[in-house]
Amino acid sequence: MQSKDEKNFFDWLVEIRRRIHEWPELSYQEHRTASLISEELNNLGIPHRTGVAKTGIIAEIGHEGPCVALRADMDALPLKEETGLPFASKVPGVMHACGHDGHVAMLLGAARLLKAEPLSGRVRFIFQPAEENGAGALEMIKAGALNGVSAIFGGHIDRHFKVGEIAINEGLICAFTDTFTINIEGKGGHAAWPHEAIDAVVVGSLLVVNIQTIISREVNPAYPCVITVGKFEGGTAHNVIAERAYLEGTIRSTHPDVRKRIIDGLKRIARGVGDLHRAHVKLKIKEGYPPVINSPEETNIAREAAKLVVGSVGVLKQPHPSLGGEDFSFYLQKVPGCFVRFGAMKKGFEKAPAHSPKFNFDEQVLPIGAKFLAQVAKLALKRLVEKKDS
Amino acid sequence: MQSKDEKNFFDWLVEIRRRIHEWPELSYQEHRTASLISEELNNLGIPHRTGVAKTGIIAEIGHEGPCVALRADMDALPLKEETGLPFASKVPGVMHACGHDGHVAMLLGAARLLKAEPLSGRVRFIFQPAEENGAGALEMIKAGALNGVSAIFGGHIDRHFKVGEIAINEGLICAFTDTFTINIEGKGGHAAWPHEAIDAVVVGSLLVVNIQTIISREVNPAYPCVITVGKFEGGTAHNVIAERAYLEGTIRSTHPDVRKRIIDGLKRIARGVGDLHRAHVKLKIKEGYPPVINSPEETNIAREAAKLVVGSVGVLKQPHPSLGGEDFSFYLQKVPGCFVRFGAMKKGFEKAPAHSPKFNFDEQVLPIGAKFLAQVAKLALKRLVEKKDS
Amino acid sequence: MQSKDEKNFFDWLVEIRRRIHEWPELSYQEHRTASLISEELNNLGIPHRTGVAKTGIIAEIGHEGPCVALRADMDALPLKEETGLPFASKVPGVMHACGHDGHVAMLLGAARLLKAEPLSGRVRFIFQPAEENGAGALEMIKAGALNGVSAIFGGHIDRHFKVGEIAINEGLICAFTDTFTINIEGKGGHAAWPHEAIDAVVVGSLLVVNIQTIISREVNPAYPCVITVGKFEGGTAHNVIAERAYLEGTIRSTHPDVRKRIIDGLKRIARGVGDLHRAHVKLKIKEGYPPVINSPEETNIAREAAKLVVGSVGVLKQPHPSLGGEDFSFYLQKVPGCFVRFGAMKKGFEKAPAHSPKFNFDEQVLPIGAKFLAQVAKLALKRLVEKKDS
Amino acid sequence: MQSKDEKNFFDWLVEIRRRIHEWPELSYQEHRTASLISEELNNLGIPHRTGVAKTGIIAEIGHEGPCVALRADMDALPLKEETGLPFASKVPGVMHACGHDGHVAMLLGAARLLKAEPLSGRVRFIFQPAEENGAGALEMIKAGALNGVSAIFGGHIDRHFKVGEIAINEGLICAFTDTFTINIEGKGGHAAWPHEAIDAVVVGSLLVVNIQTIISREVNPAYPCVITVGKFEGGTAHNVIAERAYLEGTIRSTHPDVRKRIIDGLKRIARGVGDLHRAHVKLKIKEGYPPVINSPEETNIAREAAKLVVGSVGVLKQPHPSLGGEDFSFYLQKVPGCFVRFGAMKKGFEKAPAHSPKFNFDEQVLPIGAKFLAQVAKLALKRLVEKKDS
Repeated sequence: MQSKDEKNFFDWLVEIRRRIHEWPELSYQEHRTASLISEELNNLGIPHRTGVAKTGIIAEIGHEGPCVALRADMDALPLKEETGLPFASKVPGVMHACGHDGHVAMLLGAARLLKAEPLSGRVRFIFQPAEENGAGALEMIKAGALNGVSAIFGGHIDRHFKVGEIAINEGLICAFTDTFTINIEGKGGHAAWPHEAIDAVVVGSLLVVNIQTIISREVNPAYPCVITVGKFEGGTAHNVIAERAYLEGTIRSTHPDVRKRIIDGLKRIARGVGDLHRAHVKLKIKEGYPPVINSPEETNIAREAAKLVVGSVGVLKQPHPSLGGEDFSFYLQKVPGCFVRFGAMKKGFEKAPAHSPKFNFDEQVLPIGAKFLAQVAKLALKRLVEKKDS
Repeated sequence: MQSKDEKNFFDWLVEIRRRIHEWPELSYQEHRTASLISEELNNLGIPHRTGVAKTGIIAEIGHEGPCVALRADMDALPLKEETGLPFASKVPGVMHACGHDGHVAMLLGAARLLKAEPLSGRVRFIFQPAEENGAGALEMIKAGALNGVSAIFGGHIDRHFKVGEIAINEGLICAFTDTFTINIEGKGGHAAWPHEAIDAVVVGSLLVVNIQTIISREVNPAYPCVITVGKFEGGTAHNVIAERAYLEGTIRSTHPDVRKRIIDGLKRIARGVGDLHRAHVKLKIKEGYPPVINSPEETNIAREAAKLVVGSVGVLKQPHPSLGGEDFSFYLQKVPGCFVRFGAMKKGFEKAPAHSPKFNFDEQVLPIGAKFLAQVAKLALKRLVEKKDS
Repeated sequence: MQSKDEKNFFDWLVEIRRRIHEWPELSYQEHRTASLISEELNNLGIPHRTGVAKTGIIAEIGHEGPCVALRADMDALPLKEETGLPFASKVPGVMHACGHDGHVAMLLGAARLLKAEPLSGRVRFIFQPAEENGAGALEMIKAGALNGVSAIFGGHIDRHFKVGEIAINEGLICAFTDTFTINIEGKGGHAAWPHEAIDAVVVGSLLVVNIQTIISREVNPAYPCVITVGKFEGGTAHNVIAERAYLEGTIRSTHPDVRKRIIDGLKRIARGVGDLHRAHVKLKIKEGYPPVINSPEETNIAREAAKLVVGSVGVLKQPHPSLGGEDFSFYLQKVPGCFVRFGAMKKGFEKAPAHSPKFNFDEQVLPIGAKFLAQVAKLALKRLVEKKDS
Repeated sequence: MQSKDEKNFFDWLVEIRRRIHEWPELSYQEHRTASLISEELNNLGIPHRTGVAKTGIIAEIGHEGPCVALRADMDALPLKEETGLPFASKVPGVMHACGHDGHVAMLLGAARLLKAEPLSGRVRFIFQPAEENGAGALEMIKAGALNGVSAIFGGHIDRHFKVGEIAINEGLICAFTDTFTINIEGKGGHAAWPHEAIDAVVVGSLLVVNIQTIISREVNPAYPCVITVGKFEGGTAHNVIAERAYLEGTIRSTHPDVRKRIIDGLKRIARGVGDLHRAHVKLKIKEGYPPVINSPEETNIAREAAKLVVGSVGVLKQPHPSLGGEDFSFYLQKVPGCFVRFGAMKKGFEKAPAHSPKFNFDEQVLPIGAKFLAQVAKLALKRLVEKKDS
């Protein structure tokens, strides 16, 4: 591709990203986004199926032979944008604060690049809804997105790295994300007569305090993990001893043993604090996304592809697993693959993390992401063909 | 009074009580109750002033001479009645769950009894609004309720004692009741990144835990006191570290030194826990009702009056001060007096405390209360006249 | 008795008190004290039995008829005296810091006074060892000290009241005093590997924190009570997670229901915290002295006697039960009686509580105590004779 | 080296290890061990300096050219051996429970191997005292151990890996190890009068509880760290409120920012809990060993050397940094180098960790360690010469 083509390619990617950014849509409501994708795929002459898992799209190019999948997520977040950008969200209370607008642009870019080249097999493009909320990946799989697929690749825009850097790690790179709720039932009563009541606010507070010891004293400190009680609601009035309290929170862990110990510890502590203070404590744990675990071979392929795009110097490692969640993990439970981080630090937006109302990224990442996805698909296909032949 | 008269008197008291019970009214909204009182006073031919402190009534009988006041409170509570009584509340979510319906009946009864007798001075009847909420006593005083009054008496229906018992104690019999609110401001953040946040739920929980030590380690155990954190609201979602938490509660104490130590302790602990965990903690204390302190001489008069009504065997002492609040204390800050407890335990309702949706009392207490109030007024007037003469 | 006799009497009491004070002896080691008592009794011509319950003495005067007992305790405390008094302890590390030296002098004084008067029955003088430690009262009872006794009286020097004041209360005046020990067994380990250990220091700390809620949230605040964990020993080194922790403490309560709730609560919390944190927690509760409960009739007699000695104005009430312990309670479980407080506030020693190395009292209390004991014995005998006759 | 030579070499290493094991010596008391080393070096004809940093030895072989250092530590632990081995410790209460006996044998083995070969520079052998206690490394450096040295290598026997495995990681592999003491001064008093005291046991317990939140809520969970309060001593008796409590513990961290946050947090919490509960809390932090940080180039050389000894399959990575401490870090602050782990899992001793009385290792590790050290020295010298030439 020539320099002028590069310019055109970049402009096209930016235009797509901004059109999506202006009209963000929540999980499973990505109708406008799907139309845009479909329109662009039509422009590129790429056949595709729409309405997969409600609002998802599956496209495919190439001929007979092995199949490699590339994936982008499409949904936005329930946040009020405060970036002040000219292409800021036009939908009140909804915002692309996690870079999925960029992911869609990159995947369309990869499709455009790959369409122009001879392929030694097939490349499938998975535009997935509902990564933030609803496990869209699972629904896409149920709808057949991985049928015939031998490997899958994807990535995430990441403001911790600079443009021109791609972070690639083998193994576990994201956390187990489980959630829990705790209902405490004590015995209400007159604020002046504690002996006739069981104070659910005190029980809840001691529960929160005791939970801290799971992290500080029960788990192997080598494996990053977190328990956050995000919400505590207890009691109704200043002069009534609280009959009930409600807590909810999330558990992040990076090793199945640690995860088990945390869940066991939480169960034991919920039961124990109840016994201790004569309250009825009911804990519910809801399993969340599993961790993303990159397979060794596909991680090597991703590294090779990244070197071709950003050079050796741009290929980095994440210093430690993220404690965030990512439903790409569901694909990796079915087929091998690799999920990478595209450096996209944006001057002036360094302090705005993902999921914050001022999040933004450097659009120079878009052609890099697109090229990486195209490259990794080609290398993976090549390897699959070699394997088959040998 | 003859036996038939007794019967008539009892039936009349019960009818008044039940009419009020059916139509309970919240603090400063006792319009219907005031109409009923005014109507009965008119029937008895007793002159009175209505609309005092919004919905209160002041009546007076007798001639020149010293003046003794008797007081009843009129308001109900924001509770949904669950007694199943035929005369249960017809107002959704409002209930006479504290016996004020009975107090009004008793005071009208005392007025009827005293109207029929020669008096050595004047007796003033204070029907006061807003005891539960709003310090109606204070408003009545401002409106002149105590002008010219030398002593005041009143009482409360009490399910801890049997019908035929009146509990009378000198000195402090009710608690100081102060309330507090605590606003905690931490720093919100992603549930997986505790190091970038300050968790207001954890700060609030540690605050509740530390507050317990004020009662267990800082105050003289000889003086009953209580701190209840009745409400705890922190955070918004399971996957966000809470930026804010809000606590509210009440302090009950029975000695000014203990009260001061509790308030000082609360201030120190709120500030300390904030410093400890880098949060901004703002404590507000709102002074409440002072304690009811019965004066020695009037307590003796009350004991004599009670003996005449229920006999020596029925005159008891409360084993210890109540930690409840009562705005009768405001009157006692101005003039001497005595506040007593009328035994009214009701079979089948033993387990339903005051302020609970199943509260009820034995109506046999009504004539006893009425007679006590009439008797104590007469004795007090007699003593005042003697004093003056001597 | 004449004024000069008064002087002689006072000097004699002071001399006895100081001789005992100089040579304090611990529980069951009161040999020198016993010799002194025996010598004085011999001087007074009062027959007595020595070596009762090791070092106690029982003396008796009077003729046929009912018998009233008076009691003094004899033992000192393991404390290093720091009063700087000319008659300070000559025994290193032992001190009369609780006034028992004065109690012995008072009882000898009462014997002298009663010896000079005609009696309508018998008065027994119980000089008891080991009140501080070892329940000497129980041993004296086993040795027959109460045989034939119809009532018993005694008292304690008290720096909270002035000389000339005697505080007398009916009913419960001292606390139940129970003690407890808690052994926690976790699992030791390398300080850097919490996940392989169970940290007994953390378990012990959470136990202490949770115990606070018994007082603050589980018991009726009307009844004074205390739980103190006086000792906490856990772990061995900074770089080893503690395998064991040991706690010990005391429970003071003033109502059997509250006592039961505290003990039940402590059991539940010990077990619960153990379950909560996977440790083995073993609680042992050792029952201590029961509370002193003065009987109504003997309390009235004590009041009459006190009036005769200090006048009506000197007869007071303790404002609330003491949370201290006193083994006089064992006598009161067998026969009715009354235990009083002799005001003995000493200028310059106001801040030194009993059991502190600077404790002292005003010796003017000695003849008051002696006269009260003599008087109460006479009145009690008189009443017993009247009863018998009627 | 031939098979028979191998056998001889192995037997010789085992004999050295066992002679040292039988006579373990504490930090800076390694006189007998030093004599043995000196004797063996003399046997090998290797010149050396004894008495360095009290009991250390520095030996050197080779000619002009760059210098590479190899290091072994010599000291034992204050533990009573319970292995039941025929060569168990003959010194009561002292034991080689950390493998330093093996380290000395390995380094003598490396000296023997290198002595027999032509070298492209010099190899220095550092036999260092006092690794467990006293930072012997620092003293050796002060005595000139690193003068002229361009790189340093060493290793540790590790029962987590099998014989034939060597674990090698770049970067931080051991923790910062700091220790702390906390003195709490409350106000003692009678167990029954909490309001006159400040309970140091409660303050200490709340301190321990609050400290847990540093790990659970204040630090980046990605960087392993631990705070252990290993010891808690508070109070003197069950019936006295504790005036003082003493805590001591250790901090392990793997990132300087995390270490700073922990220390800052500990300071803030110590001060805050003191303010909170009116106690005087004094925290002292004693800086310990810095973390071991392997330099990239030397880590690569170590990997090459390990491959030559145990093959590619034997070269592993530690899954995560150890939270143990190691004073090899002081050398690495001066010159680049690499510290490795020699797999030495011993059948029947799997459950006995280092620093436990039953610790043992598989002696097959000895020739592997010796060969690795020899090999890495040769490769490092070669690289240094190449560098110089280029």
